[in-house]
Amino acid sequence: MGDRERTTVRRAPDRGHYDRPTIDAILDEALVCHVGFVDDGQPVVIPTLQVRVDDHVYLHGATGSRMVKVLSSGAPACVTVTLLDGLVLARSAFHQSVNYRSVVIFGTATRVEDPEMKCRVLHELTERFVPGRWADIRHPNEGELARTALLALPIDEASAKIRTGGPKDDEEDLGLPIWAGVIPLELTRLEPVPDENGGSHTS
Amino acid sequence: MGDRERTTVRRAPDRGHYDRPTIDAILDEALVCHVGFVDDGQPVVIPTLQVRVDDHVYLHGATGSRMVKVLSSGAPACVTVTLLDGLVLARSAFHQSVNYRSVVIFGTATRVEDPEMKCRVLHELTERFVPGRWADIRHPNEGELARTALLALPIDEASAKIRTGGPKDDEEDLGLPIWAGVIPLELTRLEPVPDENGGSHTS
Repeated sequence: MGDRERTTVRRAPDRGHYDRPTIDAILDEALVCHVGFVDDGQPVVIPTLQVRVDDHVYLHGATGSRMVKVLSSGAPACVTVTLLDGLVLARSAFHQSVNYRSVVIFGTATRVEDPEMKCRVLHELTERFVPGRWADIRHPNEGELARTALLALPIDEASAKIRTGGPKDDEEDLGLPIWAGVIPLELTRLEPVPDENGGSHTS
Repeated sequence: MGDRERTTVRRAPDRGHYDRPTIDAILDEALVCHVGFVDDGQPVVIPTLQVRVDDHVYLHGATGSRMVKVLSSGAPACVTVTLLDGLVLARSAFHQSVNYRSVVIFGTATRVEDPEMKCRVLHELTERFVPGRWADIRHPNEGELARTALLALPIDEASAKIRTGGPKDDEEDLGLPIWAGVIPLELTRLEPVPDENGGSHTS
């Protein structure tokens, strides 16, 4: 792990985790990350897909996109992933909260030009969408890989922050006749919708 | 609306929207935002709850948190909200995508010290968790409001980006015997879990 100072969870330090299995599990469950970079002094936060492979988080995009341009220049980046797990309903407004698991990674991304690695990342992403699907679909050709810019961010300076459990009500509020607890949240997959070009005609 | 240059959606410009009803609907559906700021040259992206009230997005936090300190100093901020709506399964790996609705707001936040406004934001947040719940719970007292730092970011320089619909496969791939379409995603509320302090004993 890199410099610990920047990644130390300061607010609610008991929620901080620094071990890779914890960090990796969050990264592997989330599809979307929010990438932060500075463009001409202005912080910019862009949502994009992320895929972890071994010790890096991979981001891909069109070669001409601003995110790709800025990160390729070696500018510092911050990649944050958040899973919202529940609404925490306390007896007092002040203690309302949410359960979540998040990861923050600081670092500098590097461009990956290797077509095999680009293919590997598209492979992993496909399998995260639907396990086993890579075997069924058309794999990327040379031109498509050339148009895909791939960025790798090392998981060195990283931390996870996790809140679980019920509300932390004040002692004197516990007797109030108010329902308190958690409404768990889950990102659910609904019934697949085939496209208009005969997407349903097989498998 | 403020400076349009920074908020113009450049990649896939047909996905860009700049009208407030579209922007507000996304902000009002999302609970979590990702706040970007620059701390000593380093971009930082922090997930936190957001509540829109009229023409501002409100963020709250502990008075001592880094986010609150940096944003209170007048540093430029970027607040991004993303709703993930579906996995777009194309016939080719290259065209895999996701359906989403996102909003990016640039600007400078200001601290709000008015206890009534702080109370209003906690009220709105509570109602977003569970409509009608504000009437049931203990409202914040003076001390709690004093410990809550509130930041307001104007929705001036804002844009939405939306992808909907099925995959955009290449013409020559349409005949391939591959299922293609969308798996819709939805953040679902599961069965509420009462806390161990008798959260279930009423209402």
